[in-house]
Amino acid sequence: MINAAIIGASGYGGGVLLQWLSRHPEVTIAVATSRTYAEKPFCEAFPGMAKRLDKVFAGDIKLEEIKGCDVVFLARDNGVAMNLGPQYLEAGCKVIDLSADFRFRDPATYEAWYPITHKSPEASRDAVYGMPELHKSAIRKANLVGNPGCYTTTSILGLAPLLALRTEQAEVTGFEAQPVIDPNSIIINGLSGVSGAGRSKFGLDFHFSEANESATAYKIAGTHRHTPEIEQELGGLIGQEIVVSFTPHLVPMTRGILATCYARLNENIGADELRERYRVFYKNEPFVYITDGIPATKHVLGSNMCHIGLAVDARTNVVTVVSCTDNLGKGMVGQAMQNMNLMFGLEETAGLEMTGVWP
Amino acid sequence: MINAAIIGASGYGGGVLLQWLSRHPEVTIAVATSRTYAEKPFCEAFPGMAKRLDKVFAGDIKLEEIKGCDVVFLARDNGVAMNLGPQYLEAGCKVIDLSADFRFRDPATYEAWYPITHKSPEASRDAVYGMPELHKSAIRKANLVGNPGCYTTTSILGLAPLLALRTEQAEVTGFEAQPVIDPNSIIINGLSGVSGAGRSKFGLDFHFSEANESATAYKIAGTHRHTPEIEQELGGLIGQEIVVSFTPHLVPMTRGILATCYARLNENIGADELRERYRVFYKNEPFVYITDGIPATKHVLGSNMCHIGLAVDARTNVVTVVSCTDNLGKGMVGQAMQNMNLMFGLEETAGLEMTGVWP
Amino acid sequence: MINAAIIGASGYGGGVLLQWLSRHPEVTIAVATSRTYAEKPFCEAFPGMAKRLDKVFAGDIKLEEIKGCDVVFLARDNGVAMNLGPQYLEAGCKVIDLSADFRFRDPATYEAWYPITHKSPEASRDAVYGMPELHKSAIRKANLVGNPGCYTTTSILGLAPLLALRTEQAEVTGFEAQPVIDPNSIIINGLSGVSGAGRSKFGLDFHFSEANESATAYKIAGTHRHTPEIEQELGGLIGQEIVVSFTPHLVPMTRGILATCYARLNENIGADELRERYRVFYKNEPFVYITDGIPATKHVLGSNMCHIGLAVDARTNVVTVVSCTDNLGKGMVGQAMQNMNLMFGLEETAGLEMTGVWP
Amino acid sequence: MINAAIIGASGYGGGVLLQWLSRHPEVTIAVATSRTYAEKPFCEAFPGMAKRLDKVFAGDIKLEEIKGCDVVFLARDNGVAMNLGPQYLEAGCKVIDLSADFRFRDPATYEAWYPITHKSPEASRDAVYGMPELHKSAIRKANLVGNPGCYTTTSILGLAPLLALRTEQAEVTGFEAQPVIDPNSIIINGLSGVSGAGRSKFGLDFHFSEANESATAYKIAGTHRHTPEIEQELGGLIGQEIVVSFTPHLVPMTRGILATCYARLNENIGADELRERYRVFYKNEPFVYITDGIPATKHVLGSNMCHIGLAVDARTNVVTVVSCTDNLGKGMVGQAMQNMNLMFGLEETAGLEMTGVWP
Repeated sequence: MINAAIIGASGYGGGVLLQWLSRHPEVTIAVATSRTYAEKPFCEAFPGMAKRLDKVFAGDIKLEEIKGCDVVFLARDNGVAMNLGPQYLEAGCKVIDLSADFRFRDPATYEAWYPITHKSPEASRDAVYGMPELHKSAIRKANLVGNPGCYTTTSILGLAPLLALRTEQAEVTGFEAQPVIDPNSIIINGLSGVSGAGRSKFGLDFHFSEANESATAYKIAGTHRHTPEIEQELGGLIGQEIVVSFTPHLVPMTRGILATCYARLNENIGADELRERYRVFYKNEPFVYITDGIPATKHVLGSNMCHIGLAVDARTNVVTVVSCTDNLGKGMVGQAMQNMNLMFGLEETAGLEMTGVWP
Repeated sequence: MINAAIIGASGYGGGVLLQWLSRHPEVTIAVATSRTYAEKPFCEAFPGMAKRLDKVFAGDIKLEEIKGCDVVFLARDNGVAMNLGPQYLEAGCKVIDLSADFRFRDPATYEAWYPITHKSPEASRDAVYGMPELHKSAIRKANLVGNPGCYTTTSILGLAPLLALRTEQAEVTGFEAQPVIDPNSIIINGLSGVSGAGRSKFGLDFHFSEANESATAYKIAGTHRHTPEIEQELGGLIGQEIVVSFTPHLVPMTRGILATCYARLNENIGADELRERYRVFYKNEPFVYITDGIPATKHVLGSNMCHIGLAVDARTNVVTVVSCTDNLGKGMVGQAMQNMNLMFGLEETAGLEMTGVWP
Repeated sequence: MINAAIIGASGYGGGVLLQWLSRHPEVTIAVATSRTYAEKPFCEAFPGMAKRLDKVFAGDIKLEEIKGCDVVFLARDNGVAMNLGPQYLEAGCKVIDLSADFRFRDPATYEAWYPITHKSPEASRDAVYGMPELHKSAIRKANLVGNPGCYTTTSILGLAPLLALRTEQAEVTGFEAQPVIDPNSIIINGLSGVSGAGRSKFGLDFHFSEANESATAYKIAGTHRHTPEIEQELGGLIGQEIVVSFTPHLVPMTRGILATCYARLNENIGADELRERYRVFYKNEPFVYITDGIPATKHVLGSNMCHIGLAVDARTNVVTVVSCTDNLGKGMVGQAMQNMNLMFGLEETAGLEMTGVWP
Repeated sequence: MINAAIIGASGYGGGVLLQWLSRHPEVTIAVATSRTYAEKPFCEAFPGMAKRLDKVFAGDIKLEEIKGCDVVFLARDNGVAMNLGPQYLEAGCKVIDLSADFRFRDPATYEAWYPITHKSPEASRDAVYGMPELHKSAIRKANLVGNPGCYTTTSILGLAPLLALRTEQAEVTGFEAQPVIDPNSIIINGLSGVSGAGRSKFGLDFHFSEANESATAYKIAGTHRHTPEIEQELGGLIGQEIVVSFTPHLVPMTRGILATCYARLNENIGADELRERYRVFYKNEPFVYITDGIPATKHVLGSNMCHIGLAVDARTNVVTVVSCTDNLGKGMVGQAMQNMNLMFGLEETAGLEMTGVWP
């Protein structure tokens, strides 16, 4: 059994980690911390755990205590993991960080988008970006994984096959760069449920009376911090720097991310052929499903799946890809568990076989 | 492994059965039928099952085919199971019926409330009412179980301890009748999410544009058909006929039942003592949780739990009990699986340990 | 034209007052105050007012400035109006208070339910309870009106005809007490949209991610402060003290109150006859509509209407009345304007003719 | 007073027309037809009209009866107005058609996108496209107006100033073509509330249990029929044919359209300057509001307003414009009334001054 620690377990990410890890056949939750709920039972933060997951949150824990853990999930705010991560690595744990601290190959990119000086630039350079569909072999060998953002995951999975066609020997040779789109024409329109804002953000924007029956955009025109992640990964596929235009939106639902991605096609190609390429690209990926029709966020609610549909508009030469995940599933916790499975040599789908919630 | 058949698997009940049974460690889904989706993959009815539960619905199946099954879940409309159930019993299967056909000890009650002549009155008399908290030992020996309704389950669990105090030897001696309330003073105000109406009911009442941002009552003043179920079971606890006043409501959410139950107290008793009695009553029940505060349907969403809170108003001498379940969980599918576990001598909680969905 | 002041205009009550008063043909909004938005345009608090209602909030205003106003609407927290109200009365204004400060004939009742010592007990005794359907002639003569609560209005309108039958000379002789129900058997189950909690209450209970897809009760068993208001008014109808059992619930919608009221009948009477009595009772009331079927909160959204339906359960001898309002309409702002119309001798429906919002 | 007829008054468009026209100071609703609710009171279709708008739907009416009307609003399915419109014109009425039948200057465009042979191509050519912000003087003289679609209105208003700068003499000289964007780079991502699907469309897509808590796209890649409308009008501004890429989405709310529009800038221009150009462009338009921040659909709910915000991404050279309306307000009914006001020489804002619904 793998002993897991969750640092920051009373937010939405931490809570879903508790729920999902507790069902994982090979994992024991050794410790889960929360400053807000220190010494209180899980069910005080998450009433649904009463009688099913009867444990108690630790407050801040000492490094000594973490040493018995095989893996630490860091579910704290940006700027915290850069301090804690290296200590835990040194203590012999594998670390999966759910914040943005270890997502950027170049710490300067992090500092340009986040108002924080990076305290562990070396660790950051060594960290692996935890998207199994792009970096599976590296993740298998990694001790420190920067788990991707929710918009990021959904957008990259939706766009990657347009930029790179995975070859048979992908794991060995990397991807063959054959972008069928103009890589600088990408526009991503993201929709998110309100839980994406986190559990501790209050204010009128997230107040039921004002978020309900309303749709809005925020951080428009390339100011959202998931932008550089998307650019790093999509650019990495073709070995060149690219810029994408990303605009997030808030819609009145609790969970779900829908990324509608637009790009100009370089070649005359139909939707059927593109869909086939997507299926080849993801043929070994257990959590990506290419739909014939158009996916909806409800189709992936409560699961680790990413559903992707697409169409081509011959009039405008624009390909439209609709990609969706549960922001707390494949967009966060499920992906972190998938990374853990790979890091520990387990079956990639262990603990993640659920079909989601319907209706 | 237990081979299970689901008859009528493309509605909400059938769909959740597919989801939850597929996670049960001791069950194989041998066959799932749907006339609407005959010969089509599960994911056509339930897109979330794509790549995770890749099977195909059967159309109507022959009795021969059912013979290899250990258990049949009937998830069809009222009036169907009364024909199919006896055949499947004869074929050697245990049968759990999710309709109302086998819920009434007296077929005349069924006929009084449903516009259907009962075709299998004998089987009906022999069937066990599938509420494990009241009939556990009978369920263990049963071949035919009538699985309770959602409002019913939630209401009965909320009220039973007020009518009967379970003794130490409950399983042997039955319940000791010591009602602390006037049994004919019960008023139940039920709230339900829209999925309670089923998947195939259309019309303006369930159209998003009109159900959203609206709360309403329906079938008021004792006309809803869950009323006689509640009366049968609560009356059974004290060995006398009682009548209850039950009014269901529709509120704008997908899943969840909240039953707020009111009754006049016979004795001067405080909330703390009552709560303690509830805890004694349910002390061996893995799926009933007595809260200190007030439960919410979101606390039980996606799980088999029933959460119950209560308070006493000394001014009016009324006890108010708030009981909630997921209408498709403990209110239907979870309870059916709990019954199956008991009927096959499995751990009562097998496949039902989940903590639900949050947020 | 009537010059109106709104004190505390940036909450939900104040905002709807701005919207609705601005459409009133006989009213000019002379001043609207907000400490949060002092000196800022209305549209900063309420973006929908941009270009349509282009004014600026005052901060706290001096008594001098209030003198030019004919009417002051006080939309502040409990405990504020008891200080401001008498000053404004002295300045020559009529005062309509939306808080609880002037709702109780007996200040001791107020102090028993609110943790505040009443500063203006005399004014409180002289104030008129602003429910036009019960106190129309007194309101016409009043200078100080305590505007009822939302649950209160909805519940009282739903129950009053069961306690008192309005005679032909009601305005002269008062009501004839002929309760068809046991007045101490009343149970009220209230549902409310989240806006009922106000605009400045934050916390997980009102956070979209947790309020959405959840129904819950709160302040159960007679602890909600609308209880004594209901008792004062219903008791007043029959000239005796009564107690009611009232339990409020929160359901996932923004606006709307649905009160399902239960009581034991004293006599053998059918729903049709009761419905007819309701129609007689309210025959001169422009804002009460007795439905043949069952009302829904969406039917009254955005209007000053109260819709009431009922049924009788002959098995239990319980009458069930379903009454609904918009908590910010007839439950608050619309009623305040209706009171204003009466106090100034205007047509009772002036500015309140709207049919609401649909869908 | 203007006598108005509404043909097809029991759908959502017709219902809002009834609500809003009944508040118009210069309009009498002479007749409103509905085949579904023929001879039944309005409140049977719209319960909120009880006691406030007590009239009865006519069934199909004879041409004779329409002759007394000054204006006819046609709120029927596509393909109906092309038959009725010319008759009503001949009868001496002005006609405002809410379907697509009279929106296209070239009937061939209509036939290419709708599966209907146009029966009145001549009338179609003479009809005026009812968007007052672009065609005000023509509408003033029109007898037949094709009222624009909801996505269309919202998108065109959001994009028009990028294509044309209105000159001082706009009404005389037309617009000066100075597109700051590449006109063929336009991508429109539309979000809609479920009421956009109409009242008579049932099915799982609009069933509360499946539409709730889900976001999805539909008719992606330029297949939605609002596309050619947008192209006609935006192309018309610069006198050339253009193609746009438009993808509509369904999000879980009842009302509201949010169009997020993307285009490549031709010149180096900042958001502030662009915003200033928008304000000049719309300076005489009472229903368009250029926000400093980002608009939300709730800001325009229940009003005839269109709110528009924008930002420029200097990294990608993309301008992002967020435009929103109430799909049943400025997106349909409000615009139709605005057109009527112009056609009859009334104040453009008559009956449309409302600030909307909040919260």
